[in-house]
Amino acid sequence: MKKLEHIGIAVKDLDAAELLYSKLLNTNSYKRELVESEGVITSFFMVGNVKIELLAATNSESPIAKFIEKKGEGIHHLAFEVEDIQKALHEKKEAGFIAINGTPKEGADNKSIAFLHPKSTGSVLVEMCQEN
Amino acid sequence: MKKLEHIGIAVKDLDAAELLYSKLLNTNSYKRELVESEGVITSFFMVGNVKIELLAATNSESPIAKFIEKKGEGIHHLAFEVEDIQKALHEKKEAGFIAINGTPKEGADNKSIAFLHPKSTGSVLVEMCQEN
Repeated sequence: MKKLEHIGIAVKDLDAAELLYSKLLNTNSYKRELVESEGVITSFFMVGNVKIELLAATNSESPIAKFIEKKGEGIHHLAFEVEDIQKALHEKKEAGFIAINGTPKEGADNKSIAFLHPKSTGSVLVEMCQEN
Repeated sequence: MKKLEHIGIAVKDLDAAELLYSKLLNTNSYKRELVESEGVITSFFMVGNVKIELLAATNSESPIAKFIEKKGEGIHHLAFEVEDIQKALHEKKEAGFIAINGTPKEGADNKSIAFLHPKSTGSVLVEMCQEN
């Protein structure tokens, strides 16, 4: 993994969460982005070296709605940048990690992404991402 | 907040977790440190711009033992570096966040630290830290 690209945080109400995280982080969200295929609207903050990505569900079938229903709001995933997402996914599977996605898919912020299942990673949902 | 300093991850077995995270992150732990006052042994990885701090309990009264009992293994806290921990703690309290520590205390990795309560931060345990 090259570096930590962002931390995804599941929130119920994006407007309220943006206000809260602005106060907490001393900086404002610099963009929102809708990822329709995932039923998610995102809001990004930059804190020094890392992005914080707030994630709110846009419908009740969204993975974020299900996550919040089960676990409540809070940290949803850690995303690490990789050079080559296909290669990284292959290597992680070879090393015994369980891929949630057979092949990389399109994520927010102009990236190809793939997730590793928390049951193979010490209960941390890990995203690998490559800039398109 | 100046930057994300580290991510704390609660683990049951530090030896096993070090092996797992070495494979996941493609890098080895560069140090272990015991924080006796907290009943915690830590292990640090550097991934590009950010440290990953594995946290294992050394006794059943440790906050990490209690966290794992309640929530299982996984991400425990996000730690942000601040210029002046006293000032940052004061400012966050003024802004409505709930401090877990009335005054900063000594943490691992030669730092003064203070936590904000998850119930005031969207269910994310936030540490602020200043290098001593």
